[in-house]
Formats: sequence, structure tokens, C-alpha cells
Amino acid sequence: VAEERERTRTTVDIYGEQYTIVGDENPDHVRKVASLVDEKMREIKRKNPYLDTKKLAVLTAVNIVNEYIKLKDHFDQAHKANKEDEEST
Amino acid sequence: VAEERERTRTTVDIYGEQYTIVGDENPDHVRKVASLVDEKMREIKRKNPYLDTKKLAVLTAVNIVNEYIKLKDHFDQAHKANKEDEEST
Repeated sequence: VAEERERTRTTVDIYGEQYTIVGDENPDHVRKVASLVDEKMREIKRKNPYLDTKKLAVLTAVNIVNEYIKLKDHFDQAHKANKEDEEST
Repeated sequence: VAEERERTRTTVDIYGEQYTIVGDENPDHVRKVASLVDEKMREIKRKNPYLDTKKLAVLTAVNIVNEYIKLKDHFDQAHKANKEDEEST
């Protein structure tokens, strides 16, 4: 996080608890991110009703990292294919 | 998760606790994902030493969703620029 940027403090509710997120993102973006995490936690809880909140949060993070890697691989592949296309024309 | 694929069970250690991840990913991939989550949790804990593990895990998920959205926006922009390039040639 760059020092020269303006710092925002946004309070959000995730899975029934309040969190104050400090950063350089605008509050609307922070609220969108928080609501995606809240949603994902509830989705995983429905599939694993026995999980306590700590394990639920850790498994939510695992899920999101997995999706992050998939997205990155997908775009890296697309980029590679695109580059090869360009080189062959 | 597709029914026809093979289901794997991989036990991983994240922030001192064991989790059994069930899915269709190979165990090496699951271990890579788990170690990224573990790393991220330790990084956030260093910056916020007062956080309990539950809040730490939730904030880790928030961080990763934020990075996911940034990555997606970045690639969407690149894709759009690339498309415009193609259309103009």
C-alpha cells in the first residue's frame, strides 16, 4: 500500500461480525469485496453445516485462492494462445 | 463439482490446524493452495498481531477476494484493449 495515497477506513459486516478495513480502496469497493466473502462463507456453511466459523473462514480462503489460481491459469493460457496467434500472422 | 470426476481427499495443515479438502483437484494442487493461504494468514497476522484466528481468516479471505477482483479487472481491460487493437487493424 503506497504511502502517498489516501487511506480509507470502511466498516463492514461479514458473517455477523464487524470489521474495519483500512486501505486505499474506495468504500464501495470494500463493501463489494466484503459481501462476496460473506456470500461465499454462507455457501460453504450450507454444504458443511458442522464447521465452526474459524474453519469456515479458512476454507473460504482456500476456495478463493483456488479460484484465483484457476482464473490466472485461464488468462495465462489465453494470453499465450493469443501471442502464438500474433506470431503466426 | 462434476460427479463423473474422481474425488480426492487431501489433508493439509493451515495455520496449525488440519483440514481435509475433498474435491476433484489433485493433491499437489490442494497442498499448493493451502500453503498460499497459510502464508497469507501469517503475513496478515504480522501486520495485525492482535487478531484472533477467526478474524484473521476472514480478513485473509477479504484480501484474496480483493486480489481476485483486481486480477480479473486487469485481464478484462487487457482483453478489451486487445480486441480494440484487432478491430482497428
